[in-house]
Amino acid sequence: MAGSTYGTAIRVTTFGESHGPALGAVLDGFPAGMALSEADIQPYMDRRKPGQSAITTPRKEADEVRILSGVFEGRTTGTPIALLLENTSQRSADYSNVAHTYRPGHADYTYDMKYGFRDYRGGGRSSGRETAGRVAAGAVCAKLLSEMGITVTAYTRSIGPVEISPDKRSPEGLDPELRLRTMTGMPDEEADARAQEFLKKCMEEKTSAGGVIECRISGVPAGIGEPVFDKLDAELAKAVMSIGAVKAVEIGDGCEAAGLQGQEDNDAFRIAADGSVCKKTNHAGGILGGISDGSDILLRASIKPTPSIFRPQETVTDQGEETELILAGRHDPVIVPRAVVVVESMCAITILDAMIRGVGARADQLISFNRR
Amino acid sequence: MAGSTYGTAIRVTTFGESHGPALGAVLDGFPAGMALSEADIQPYMDRRKPGQSAITTPRKEADEVRILSGVFEGRTTGTPIALLLENTSQRSADYSNVAHTYRPGHADYTYDMKYGFRDYRGGGRSSGRETAGRVAAGAVCAKLLSEMGITVTAYTRSIGPVEISPDKRSPEGLDPELRLRTMTGMPDEEADARAQEFLKKCMEEKTSAGGVIECRISGVPAGIGEPVFDKLDAELAKAVMSIGAVKAVEIGDGCEAAGLQGQEDNDAFRIAADGSVCKKTNHAGGILGGISDGSDILLRASIKPTPSIFRPQETVTDQGEETELILAGRHDPVIVPRAVVVVESMCAITILDAMIRGVGARADQLISFNRR
Amino acid sequence: MAGSTYGTAIRVTTFGESHGPALGAVLDGFPAGMALSEADIQPYMDRRKPGQSAITTPRKEADEVRILSGVFEGRTTGTPIALLLENTSQRSADYSNVAHTYRPGHADYTYDMKYGFRDYRGGGRSSGRETAGRVAAGAVCAKLLSEMGITVTAYTRSIGPVEISPDKRSPEGLDPELRLRTMTGMPDEEADARAQEFLKKCMEEKTSAGGVIECRISGVPAGIGEPVFDKLDAELAKAVMSIGAVKAVEIGDGCEAAGLQGQEDNDAFRIAADGSVCKKTNHAGGILGGISDGSDILLRASIKPTPSIFRPQETVTDQGEETELILAGRHDPVIVPRAVVVVESMCAITILDAMIRGVGARADQLISFNRR
Amino acid sequence: MAGSTYGTAIRVTTFGESHGPALGAVLDGFPAGMALSEADIQPYMDRRKPGQSAITTPRKEADEVRILSGVFEGRTTGTPIALLLENTSQRSADYSNVAHTYRPGHADYTYDMKYGFRDYRGGGRSSGRETAGRVAAGAVCAKLLSEMGITVTAYTRSIGPVEISPDKRSPEGLDPELRLRTMTGMPDEEADARAQEFLKKCMEEKTSAGGVIECRISGVPAGIGEPVFDKLDAELAKAVMSIGAVKAVEIGDGCEAAGLQGQEDNDAFRIAADGSVCKKTNHAGGILGGISDGSDILLRASIKPTPSIFRPQETVTDQGEETELILAGRHDPVIVPRAVVVVESMCAITILDAMIRGVGARADQLISFNRR
Repeated sequence: MAGSTYGTAIRVTTFGESHGPALGAVLDGFPAGMALSEADIQPYMDRRKPGQSAITTPRKEADEVRILSGVFEGRTTGTPIALLLENTSQRSADYSNVAHTYRPGHADYTYDMKYGFRDYRGGGRSSGRETAGRVAAGAVCAKLLSEMGITVTAYTRSIGPVEISPDKRSPEGLDPELRLRTMTGMPDEEADARAQEFLKKCMEEKTSAGGVIECRISGVPAGIGEPVFDKLDAELAKAVMSIGAVKAVEIGDGCEAAGLQGQEDNDAFRIAADGSVCKKTNHAGGILGGISDGSDILLRASIKPTPSIFRPQETVTDQGEETELILAGRHDPVIVPRAVVVVESMCAITILDAMIRGVGARADQLISFNRR
Repeated sequence: MAGSTYGTAIRVTTFGESHGPALGAVLDGFPAGMALSEADIQPYMDRRKPGQSAITTPRKEADEVRILSGVFEGRTTGTPIALLLENTSQRSADYSNVAHTYRPGHADYTYDMKYGFRDYRGGGRSSGRETAGRVAAGAVCAKLLSEMGITVTAYTRSIGPVEISPDKRSPEGLDPELRLRTMTGMPDEEADARAQEFLKKCMEEKTSAGGVIECRISGVPAGIGEPVFDKLDAELAKAVMSIGAVKAVEIGDGCEAAGLQGQEDNDAFRIAADGSVCKKTNHAGGILGGISDGSDILLRASIKPTPSIFRPQETVTDQGEETELILAGRHDPVIVPRAVVVVESMCAITILDAMIRGVGARADQLISFNRR
Repeated sequence: MAGSTYGTAIRVTTFGESHGPALGAVLDGFPAGMALSEADIQPYMDRRKPGQSAITTPRKEADEVRILSGVFEGRTTGTPIALLLENTSQRSADYSNVAHTYRPGHADYTYDMKYGFRDYRGGGRSSGRETAGRVAAGAVCAKLLSEMGITVTAYTRSIGPVEISPDKRSPEGLDPELRLRTMTGMPDEEADARAQEFLKKCMEEKTSAGGVIECRISGVPAGIGEPVFDKLDAELAKAVMSIGAVKAVEIGDGCEAAGLQGQEDNDAFRIAADGSVCKKTNHAGGILGGISDGSDILLRASIKPTPSIFRPQETVTDQGEETELILAGRHDPVIVPRAVVVVESMCAITILDAMIRGVGARADQLISFNRR
Repeated sequence: MAGSTYGTAIRVTTFGESHGPALGAVLDGFPAGMALSEADIQPYMDRRKPGQSAITTPRKEADEVRILSGVFEGRTTGTPIALLLENTSQRSADYSNVAHTYRPGHADYTYDMKYGFRDYRGGGRSSGRETAGRVAAGAVCAKLLSEMGITVTAYTRSIGPVEISPDKRSPEGLDPELRLRTMTGMPDEEADARAQEFLKKCMEEKTSAGGVIECRISGVPAGIGEPVFDKLDAELAKAVMSIGAVKAVEIGDGCEAAGLQGQEDNDAFRIAADGSVCKKTNHAGGILGGISDGSDILLRASIKPTPSIFRPQETVTDQGEETELILAGRHDPVIVPRAVVVVESMCAITILDAMIRGVGARADQLISFNRR
């Protein structure tokens, strides 16, 4: 059954395989009248692009995005925005060693079991390249959020044992620009240097690393999100867990909350200088009962190490024979830096979707809206 | 917008408030022909029921489930199964102290911000009581899964600092019956005793505790789940995160995967004695690329401490005044034991939904199915 | 797969069989803050109720609606509104002659083919009684529409060969109150009398009649509806065709449009006295390109004759044997009068849903809404 | 809100404007393993293509379809099939006379009211050209249906006053090949000649005509379709009504059923020579209670006359001024012939979707499916 569409009020449908002719996304339900051009999207694509440093794959992908529909005279029309990314670097590579052998940690075996066969070139649809469409759509959503005063900032919190300094990720200390300049996506140059050292060692040892991406969403007003099943945190959890290699999603204090006591976890409410309600702390991560409380929304995604490693691995063939697999080519030793913008994109789509869903929540607002 | 329906091929819609006339669920799309009576559901309801021990609220809820539709001559008909739970113990309690004051850690403030007002009696729709409908529907799904050889077993892994012994949660060591007998839902009597001690201390200190629920799903064949956004782990993450008080969801190694290296996290494939493909380890938690791999599916939910504590708390009123709140009545010092069956229910619904969604994945199967 | 839920921004899920313990509906996503009590719904239920006249079945159904959730202190809370109708008159009737025999024109055979067996008591889920839940939910939606200045008025246009006078269905001549007073639902007392005569003759001849229901929806502002697949007329067509016994749905000139020429069918635009855009005619029935144009929305549903007739009919058993069926009991000789309120309800749900879906269509509106 | 996606188990999302860079569709959830290439789709595109005869617009559209994803080594992979149609003939036409003037019978005004502005080039998203994506997706679905023994055959039944001979549309007399050869899509050469005469006269008189498209779907087994809201006829009604210019949808006897009596409309069941259940007549049009009964499914769509006519028309500008509009260029004097394949496509998508949705309807089938 269909599973490549995400969202409710706005819906993103992605398509495309790693080595097919093109990938892309259709973003439907996006509000009309926002200024939009390829130049708004390309910077997001560039953050996801490989071949940017010693720690990402040298494979060159132009990833030049093309808007096929939904924009007229520089503004969104309210109709589906189709975003296309041609696959320019489809080298006729040699896939003979993986065409019939299941790579551990990859979806080769499970796709075969589900569909009976698979596009084995570069992982096909299960490739991380699938996320290019998400990022293109996410960039569009992030732009509208930004016009609403909402910022979505994901960054690398840790890679293997290297974690950024706590003061670099506090609301005051976080420098969003910095994460765009470091190779690892860490908003902490010192940690970035150490993480790069660690990754070089991983590459020398023919292995890979995982890490943690954190995302801070600021400016969401209180009252966004739908109880019961479509809680804002539940939607974010799905959105982020749907990114390949993510193995855990935490909101606010996350796993740590399990070890706290009530008075440690509860956030006291107070009245701000401007008379509005706010909280003294933010253990909840900006969401109470599935609805935003006006504080920053904070989530974390734990990313497993790149499954493509260059050590010999035990596995089996699709003919049911045990074999040893030695992968060739080159792969990122860590997925985290390039996944930062993917987390950011999925969060942007989710938050915008929730905000549109919330507009008709009160009868009086609906009546006055339609009486204009 | 609507948010009280969960699922795709099968859909569960819950309704009802903590202190309204009744709660319930409508389970639509459930396959026809399965034997079903209230007796299949009641044991699940009883596991969620309060007033069962020193560590749960003494409030008596009969929680007697009534099947209103979708069953004829003892079998499901394929039409919506409506499940009703009357609220028998609606004492005309005094809610004057919370009617206009926002309880920290609860959804009072966020509901007010979304809807303009709220049912303040016992949390209304945001009450944990809302999960009664989920459990009723989950019990029905679990029965069909069981007929397919699939078991869903959730249990308490930790409460506060008390964790069960690793050998009590290994595939071999886990005793599912045990978790039904202990007060905490731990499949480990020794840890259960220690956790009860800890909870008693929490109650004496007028505070509460959190904990971790783990769920093991056995018997799911390889090939279940939909790429890309509707990955099985993404759906499970949403399902479990949508339970109030859950702050993190982990699949397989979860957060720990972020610190591993490729060779530590990858599960080697091998050929089992019966010729089938299996894995030597299960760091992935039974899901690769969003699709089941035939191993046990393993997930964890981190639950925050009960926000209702009996110490004075700083908060504000809905008139924008700061105040101190002292809650009266009695509340569970920990949500975990009663939430075990809720996690199990949400997983059962999700897995059954995924299995039905997967049936038409291959053209040849679809053709032969319709040629019968 | 699930099919008992209707709507997008608001969702109605109905449940229940003709002779089960209860029927009902859950209305989710309904805006918060509208005054609502059972008294708002009961008049709609009463219009659908049988046993009201010589031409409806004498079976007594109290059809007393009970609100189980979603209303607090007399106002909707934004959470699911569960509406329950107990089946009080479940006489232990004798169904032996239809339990294993397929009634022509009914869904007995098709349910058996889909599900393997069926609830044969009174048609089970395929009974017209299923629409009780729709009407309960429709009444709630109609109330909010009414507060927005929108009226949904369905009435009987024809029964068999008897049609109401054209001037009784013109915007000026239509008397909505009249349709509530006549037995047939015709807003034309003279035609009503003739239709009753015709129906008496049908009953004497042991047969049944069909007819046409027309629905006029006034007050919908221009700009409601979603292109491309979810056009307002497409949604209305689905909503109305989903009512059992409906065999055709027409919008505006409907079937007649096929025989017109461009200049006959096009509605010229002009500027009204108040400066607003309006149309000189309304061949389109208030919808252009799937979006409301500000004129009245006009649709018609053709209803087949009641399939339950008292003449001997050729049919087969579920054992594959040909047989003759003679139905006993009593049935309405025409479905139309009681279906009027069902058409009205489905239109009300559809229009309200479309209005809520439309709220976030423009970026500037969304931004200003969230900046308040 | 999003409205450009259709279907449940399979989902078609279309995108693109009349004069944008490209149009297309993403078909998600399509079963894996079916042979597919552009050559399977192109014949459907060609049937929709303009410039084919004296009675269609001379505008040349290559409409060459390109498969961007979802096919590997000549077979569908189960992942989204993206289908692209570049707009090659985007002449920089002069739209100054319609950029700010509302064409009667078109969606110009309603799009402006919904979105605040519109892509006025050739109707933008509301152009009939939008259906190109539907046809591309429909062709893929029709191929799989064909492998299941199901044929979907739409044809022109009437244009203006010219109707085909009843014996040319009976199950025995219908020649599907013939409709592909006639200019009007009529499976009746004599009527086709008369219709062409009529259309020439329309063109001379600077006006346009409407007509009726009929669709016969053969080979659908009994038991397909979901009660209650997602009845097969309800889904077909939505699918067909969502095609621009359709003003009525009829199933089986359609509007005529309203005038029949029970014994005239009921189809008697009988046992066929092979022991299967069948019907003596087919007034129901192959659907009872929303579920297929094994007979041919028969539906009709009434199409309004092309709104673009060349006579002066009264209308208004987007500045609120009354004006007279005289359209230039050339337009089809009738939409019907090119819409035949669109109706066929929407029916093919709907039927395939319903068949996949139906697979898990019985518990025993689901269990045995997952035990293989």
